[in-house]
Amino acid sequence: MILQNPARVIDHTLLKPDASADQVRNLCEEAVEYGFASVCIPSVYVPLATDLLYGSEVAVGTVVGFPLGYVPTAVKVFETAEAVARGASEIDMVIHLGAALAGDHADVEDEIRQVVRAAEKAKVKVILECCYLDDPRKQTLAGCVMNAGAAYVKTSTGFGPGGATLADVALLAQMVAGRIGVKAAGGIRDWEACRQFLAAGATRIGTSAGMSIVDQWRREQGL
Amino acid sequence: MILQNPARVIDHTLLKPDASADQVRNLCEEAVEYGFASVCIPSVYVPLATDLLYGSEVAVGTVVGFPLGYVPTAVKVFETAEAVARGASEIDMVIHLGAALAGDHADVEDEIRQVVRAAEKAKVKVILECCYLDDPRKQTLAGCVMNAGAAYVKTSTGFGPGGATLADVALLAQMVAGRIGVKAAGGIRDWEACRQFLAAGATRIGTSAGMSIVDQWRREQGL
Repeated sequence: MILQNPARVIDHTLLKPDASADQVRNLCEEAVEYGFASVCIPSVYVPLATDLLYGSEVAVGTVVGFPLGYVPTAVKVFETAEAVARGASEIDMVIHLGAALAGDHADVEDEIRQVVRAAEKAKVKVILECCYLDDPRKQTLAGCVMNAGAAYVKTSTGFGPGGATLADVALLAQMVAGRIGVKAAGGIRDWEACRQFLAAGATRIGTSAGMSIVDQWRREQGL
Repeated sequence: MILQNPARVIDHTLLKPDASADQVRNLCEEAVEYGFASVCIPSVYVPLATDLLYGSEVAVGTVVGFPLGYVPTAVKVFETAEAVARGASEIDMVIHLGAALAGDHADVEDEIRQVVRAAEKAKVKVILECCYLDDPRKQTLAGCVMNAGAAYVKTSTGFGPGGATLADVALLAQMVAGRIGVKAAGGIRDWEACRQFLAAGATRIGTSAGMSIVDQWRREQGL
């Protein structure tokens, strides 16, 4: 039985297109109350969250090249530098799937490396959007993510036709073998799913259902 | 009966996250063959399409802040300048819905104005993502789009929970009264739908089904 509070590995996430400043304020309050690892929010709200979370242990995370991944590298680098300058310490970027599927892995790796450099001390999580990839491609790309110096490989944007799967998380965890983290995201709605993803090797969970997940875990623990 | 070939008002569109360079090449060939107004493609492929379409009458269009609209203004401006420098002459940008829904219309208008300025001679089409808005808001925002100097107001990204509706196009066309264009996009799959959107006041149609639309129109015309 897992005894650790799952809040410490949850990115408390709000990425809907109509997300409001008030919703981001609530999200930040909830993140402090529950002790989530981070908030993952639209980049326009990074300064707001940075102000609200100043002095807390909750990181400010945002997304880059999201969710389609096909802006030029120069734009991903600029977005990253802007986000970090405004206070973000975690960056979830999407790879260029078209290049990955064409086998241009060196280009994908180089782009990640440039984003990692622009992110400076911020952690970069690299979203593969696994629903578009076969297993050998996922493994190759996880290798690119490691080589390029990113902190996590991440399964999904949550906006694609498929979210995280246990098989993908197990595959990525085996591939990275503890050298970097594995973030599972997309469709993780309850503690039972969260528990299974952690058991499969995920070290971070992205979800907009973090509060109910932690509440369910607490009930299970009799807390 | 409309006799004009609808190809002249169609943006031949490929915006899937896994769009490949080969698919963009095909799209450009099709656009020349059919005489579409533009190709609307991921920004990473703008240089490729600009090369392929050099000397043709097909414009190169791309998307900015797409499809979620919540990157900071500085990022939309940078994306636009990059796209124009690489050859784009049409820019479809997404507004910041959170600001629009909070009533911060001056901020929305100012952002559009900055993108229009960065676009220089390129035409800017402003996507409202109408499925999130009530009618008074759509009218107010259409006013912002006109004030800010954009060339078109556009209904939808095609990635939201709802696409173009005839009622929205009629509302926007009445509001702009011919001073700027109206682009309908999202779910327009056949000539009958295209015909109805044009009759409702659309002056540009965004679709990935442009070829079958034109083929159906030709059959109707006995061509």
